[in-house]
Amino acid sequence: MITNLKFDQNGLIPAVVQDAETGRVLMLAYMNEESLKKTVETGETWFFSRSRNELWHKGATSGHIQKVRRIDFDCDKDALLVQVEQTGVACHTGAATCFYQSLSGAENLDIGNFLPELERIIAERKV
Amino acid sequence: MITNLKFDQNGLIPAVVQDAETGRVLMLAYMNEESLKKTVETGETWFFSRSRNELWHKGATSGHIQKVRRIDFDCDKDALLVQVEQTGVACHTGAATCFYQSLSGAENLDIGNFLPELERIIAERKV
Repeated sequence: MITNLKFDQNGLIPAVVQDAETGRVLMLAYMNEESLKKTVETGETWFFSRSRNELWHKGATSGHIQKVRRIDFDCDKDALLVQVEQTGVACHTGAATCFYQSLSGAENLDIGNFLPELERIIAERKV
Repeated sequence: MITNLKFDQNGLIPAVVQDAETGRVLMLAYMNEESLKKTVETGETWFFSRSRNELWHKGATSGHIQKVRRIDFDCDKDALLVQVEQTGVACHTGAATCFYQSLSGAENLDIGNFLPELERIIAERKV
């Protein structure tokens, strides 16, 4: 199954991780073939850390594991979408998602987003 | 605003594009600084095509533009999350999202996903 995917020159493929319940995008991380195999075999996310140059079982130290619900790949076969049940928070900073900072200069684009934002806040407070 | 972001050795940053209404992840594409500036300035997505080595205004030929609602960046400042209003479909294949293929061997992980899937199908048929 994995051989059809296109890993880059470093043997990596980007994986978008999305909360299967809320639809919130939690993080973008990278997998190599071994971490993808471990993810499928164990049903929990494993990534390859580019900074530490090693396999990384998400939540191994924090307890904030991600139980995998589904994995899809894109039309170019060079990106993954991993839907998960997140235990605790996704970000090492303690934020619910790694995407917690809005691009300065792009705030003027942030229109009509009040309800999704409110849903996010409620979803966070449920945890 | 853009100088704080970490572009890779090729001057690119990955951008996860998400439908602001449905929460569905539509595609993963890459921006360079110029395409990000154009995205913010015009309020529509611009990417950098790695295969064609040129700026690419999403929807310029298909009409399937993406109106930008919001741009966030992650804790490492090396990934973007772009929430959009998608006109038509996101994928050049005609699919609603580029992530329309499930990883073979990972189907056994696909549990409890019936309702979100149904919502997706309904959302697609609305278009």
